[in-house]
This record gives sequence, structure tokens and C-alpha cells, in this order.
Amino acid sequence: MLGAEFYFKCENFQKVGAFKFRGATNAIMNLSDEERSRGVVTHSSGNHAAALAHAAVSRGVRAYIVMPETSPEVKKRAVSGYGAEITYCKPTLEARESTCEAIMERTGATLVHPYDNFFVIAGQGTAAMELLHQWPDLDVIIAPVGGGGLLSGTALAARGVNSKIKVYGAEPEMADDACRSLKAGRIIPSDNPKTIADGLRTSLCERTFTILSQNVDDILTVSEQSIIEAMLLIWERMKIVVEPSSATVLAAVLANRELFTGKKTGLIISGGNVDLRKLPFNEIS
Amino acid sequence: MLGAEFYFKCENFQKVGAFKFRGATNAIMNLSDEERSRGVVTHSSGNHAAALAHAAVSRGVRAYIVMPETSPEVKKRAVSGYGAEITYCKPTLEARESTCEAIMERTGATLVHPYDNFFVIAGQGTAAMELLHQWPDLDVIIAPVGGGGLLSGTALAARGVNSKIKVYGAEPEMADDACRSLKAGRIIPSDNPKTIADGLRTSLCERTFTILSQNVDDILTVSEQSIIEAMLLIWERMKIVVEPSSATVLAAVLANRELFTGKKTGLIISGGNVDLRKLPFNEIS
Repeated sequence: MLGAEFYFKCENFQKVGAFKFRGATNAIMNLSDEERSRGVVTHSSGNHAAALAHAAVSRGVRAYIVMPETSPEVKKRAVSGYGAEITYCKPTLEARESTCEAIMERTGATLVHPYDNFFVIAGQGTAAMELLHQWPDLDVIIAPVGGGGLLSGTALAARGVNSKIKVYGAEPEMADDACRSLKAGRIIPSDNPKTIADGLRTSLCERTFTILSQNVDDILTVSEQSIIEAMLLIWERMKIVVEPSSATVLAAVLANRELFTGKKTGLIISGGNVDLRKLPFNEIS
Repeated sequence: MLGAEFYFKCENFQKVGAFKFRGATNAIMNLSDEERSRGVVTHSSGNHAAALAHAAVSRGVRAYIVMPETSPEVKKRAVSGYGAEITYCKPTLEARESTCEAIMERTGATLVHPYDNFFVIAGQGTAAMELLHQWPDLDVIIAPVGGGGLLSGTALAARGVNSKIKVYGAEPEMADDACRSLKAGRIIPSDNPKTIADGLRTSLCERTFTILSQNVDDILTVSEQSIIEAMLLIWERMKIVVEPSSATVLAAVLANRELFTGKKTGLIISGGNVDLRKLPFNEIS
């Protein structure tokens, strides 16, 4: 279709259905014995909560997860199913953070942030590292960017293997804080973005902003319509279930063909957790 | 979930999205030079038409496909996209057969029936053969049954590799002609069956009836509801796109757990061609 070669790293097939298991696992494996004995804590309603719960409990570490009481039942069940202790709170950032802090004070648990954490970032980078070990001659690698954990790990791992590789981020236009921040040279967070790519609504932190500023060639932004079209193309042609966040990388390629023609490109497919009863495919012709 | 091991042969990842490409390819590869020069013909509105078109044209053989004029546009485009010559006819079996015969008279093309053909059956069997070469110690193998081409090939290949392997067919209750025919010892075709498993609405022919009578341990029938539930389970947990026909094998396993406990079972996932705008997942709780 594009006169180019594409290699997909399918993190939809990863445990808990997303790359998040990598970072969470690496964070758990780098705890000291004392930290292990006190457990870990995070506040999240998404894939990171399930990933941390599974990574911690399966290694005998207690996991405290703070979730908004409004979280979908299926997510509550997933996290408790992995054996984590859930504390519900009001659905505000303030309530989440204060509940988290109260748990840390009471238990001494270590906070594992979904992306503002070097162990988490390094763990997410293992997806790109594996892809490059398998296909060492990739010219380009592209990953979605939300809070920037996956893209930071991808960029560090890819540049570590091959300093000349081009690294792109794919970001929804509706949540384009990384694009705007890197252009401006300072963090400009998105304010309550509405993109269908629910995994990419978070904004960069200082840590990921700094890494991306130094290691990413460009952020390619994509429209909502193009995300849904790329998602449909992946489902129809590749016969795999991917979430909208994953489809941003293909949408970015399709909208910027000249960057990829004649090249070998690795695409990080971030995950496959999507509500199969609420698919967006009827919204396009 | 079941205290058993399962190995999935994912023909949804096959060319044209279904196992049908195997049988069509084998039929084309077994043509004589003279037959090759005259081309092949079939009447089908489904996966076999696309498979035969692709297998023939990519090997320089002309393909004449008879399709009902009422076929969905997407299927017409797929077949013509592979380079086949389509002849439209009224949507009756009589019109399809007479149109087919007229083409054979005019061109001398060889008819490649979707399942009443030993080369096609042998081709379909290569899926099971590959699975058993990879996992030689399977105790059980199960495949869907419609016209019986896939199950016949699966049974012959599996018994050829391991004469003691158990072979089951999975069939919708709403199109249970294979189950009834094997019990009765004679062919009892289904009359215009309505199952969601659109690949399994066809009935056995003498050729497949005879093979299945001698080589299959049992036909396990499954409800429409259980097909949709099994399909949802595969999409949600395995993150792959499979069509309802494919889900019958898992539905049969889930409804007959005692047959599989403690065993290693191979499941033939027949294909992944499904209309993503008309999914049945809202119909179950």
C-alpha cells in the first residue's frame, strides 16, 4: 500500500493486554527487600492499575490501587481479580492524590507512577528493544505518546541500539500537549482532552518532557477520524484487536507517507483493551 | 479456566482471511498444463470465491467466479480485486449452477467445488498437519463443520499423523446436518439454516459424509448464544478477530469440558472475515 516495510510490535498480546505490564514489572523487580515488604501503591483507572496489580501480586508484593468510585465495573473487577487492595475515592485528581498519600503514610508503600518513574520508562522501552533485536535494521520507530512513558522508553532503547534511528511519536490532535510542549520548549498540558484514544489523554511530566526533547525527531498529530480509520484497517487486514491509542501510529504513517517510503519502520502497538460493545466503526463510511 | 491445554491454529491470519486459501491453492497446483491454460470456475458468494480467485490469478490461471447479483459490494470488490472475471446471476442455486455450466462449456474451465473435491479437502487438511508438526502430542483436534471440507481434511491429516487422536467437529444447532447425518447413517441436508456462523450453512456431500463417517469421533453441536459468547471470549482474551464459524470450536469445548480436561487439544480457527460494523456483542449480557 505504501511502498514501505512495517514491523508491528503487538503489545495487545502482552499480559493485561497492554505494554503497561512491562514498566510495572520492572518497577516491582527493582524494589529493595524492605520496599517489597511494604508494598506498592498507585492511582489509576486504566491499564497501569491492572498491570501493577498483576506484576506486584504475582511476585508476592502487596498492591494498593486507588480508583475513582466511578470507574467501570469491569476495571474494578480486573484489578481486584489480580489480588490488589482497592481504595475508592471521589473522581478528582486531588482526591486520588490525597487518598494515595494517606495509604503511603499508613503502610509505607512505594508509589509507582504510571510514567513519571525511571524504572517504569525503562520497562516500557523493552518493547522497542525486543523489536530491534529481532529486526536490527529498522530505519524508523514510532510509538504513541500520552504521558510519554512508552515513547521515552522507546526512544532511549532505540537510540541505545542504533543512534541513527529516526524516532517519532504519534499523538491525537485533540490531546496534542507533547507536540505543543516540544515546539514551545516548555510543558503545556492538555486541559481535559476528549480524544477517543483514551490511553493518550494524560500530559507529559518534567521527566518525560526532558527525555523526549533530546531523543525524539518529531511528534506527528492525527485526527479522530484518521485514528478510527487506521483502527478499522488494522482490525480488517491484520485481524487483531487493538485499542484506539494503538491505531494512532498507523494513522500517523498514513498521513505522512513521504517520511516512510522505502524505509523499514517499527510500529509499537500499545494495547488491545477496548469495549467490544462500543466500537466506533459505524462512525465512518 | 478449564484445566486443559489448547493450541489454536489461526487461519484468520491466512491469506484472504480464511483456511479456504489452502484448498483453493492445492486445487490450482494440481491442474494439468492443459487445465491451467483453460482456467477454473466456481460459484460462491463467500470466502472460497476470493480464495480461488487469489490462488488462481497469482499463479497465472484465469478464474471465472459466478456470484449472485445480490452479493455484498465488499465481496464483489474483493473477488474482482484479485483479478477474477465475475459473472452475476440470479440468487438461486439453479441459476448459479446453470451459469457455471455455461462458462465451463464456453471456456473448458475446470470446476473447483468449495468442498466436494479431493484436492480442496487435502489442502484444507494442511492446517491440521502444520499444527501437529508443531505440537505432535495433541490428544484431540476439533474443527468447524459446514460442507465438511475442512473437517474432512483435518480428520485425514490428523489420523495420518497420529491414528489415536480424537477428532471432533463443531456445528451450530441451527445447521446440524452433519450431526444428524452421521447419526442416521445417511445424508440429511439442512434446509436454509439461519445460524450466525455464515460459513457453516452448507450441508455435507457424499464425499465429505463418507470421510467423516470413518474418521470423526463425534459432532458437538452448539447454540447461537454460545457461539457469540465464545467469539467474545476469543476477541477479549486473545485479542484476535475471528468470525462466528471459528468460535464454534471454543463453544463446543466450553459446553463439553469433560472431554478435554487434562488433555492437549488443537482448535482450528477457520477465519476472521466478519463485518466489523455489524457485530453481535450487544446481544449478550
